[in-house]
Amino acid sequence: MLSRKAVVQLAMGDLKHLVLAKFKEGVPVEDLIKGMERLATDMEAVKGFEWGQDSVSEVALRQGYTHVFILTFKSAEDFAAFSAHPTHLEFAANFAAGIESILVFDFPSVLIKPSNAAAAAAAPA
Amino acid sequence: MLSRKAVVQLAMGDLKHLVLAKFKEGVPVEDLIKGMERLATDMEAVKGFEWGQDSVSEVALRQGYTHVFILTFKSAEDFAAFSAHPTHLEFAANFAAGIESILVFDFPSVLIKPSNAAAAAAAPA
Repeated sequence: MLSRKAVVQLAMGDLKHLVLAKFKEGVPVEDLIKGMERLATDMEAVKGFEWGQDSVSEVALRQGYTHVFILTFKSAEDFAAFSAHPTHLEFAANFAAGIESILVFDFPSVLIKPSNAAAAAAAPA
Repeated sequence: MLSRKAVVQLAMGDLKHLVLAKFKEGVPVEDLIKGMERLATDMEAVKGFEWGQDSVSEVALRQGYTHVFILTFKSAEDFAAFSAHPTHLEFAANFAAGIESILVFDFPSVLIKPSNAAAAAAAPA
């Protein structure tokens, strides 16, 4: 449930749902990632999706997490619709079963410099 | 120092430098954020920058972190140039002094659905 303050904040910009994860040994991580890519691609409520694997930072600095997933929503309503959707719930149960540790961070994005390639192409030279 | 494997991976896409932070009590957080916005805006090596504050997720789920900062670089070279730049080093020392806890996660971004407003505007209706 979102507080009134949270809803007001979310109105400021896209809402990002950031998940850091470390998977249990033997879990088919690539299958889980492919599943999440499908989920994000298929569901209209998801405005954006990117993910990554960290093999660069010191393990201690990243506190053992190996993967990051960032979902973007244009509104709190879209995020709520996604969260409650049966397709997401089914995926989330699968995903949770494979997780050794997880960190979730939800935030209205304050965009200072857009990094998207399309935005860069559209910017004056 | 980046491994050869890391450099190869970074060639795949933008490199993102993600920082989760919790500040010490009494630290002028808004000033630090404004300083980071200035740094990211001024330095050409920084391709993109966004930040956010989480007042939505359960504190336990976000493990006490309150702020996220995401810097985007188009290459490992640009990231290295930024990291070693005196302006960044001066800022980083200031920033580190105000930090109670920090998590750093560096990853080549695998972009499945671009979420940028400019990209959305450019997409066919």
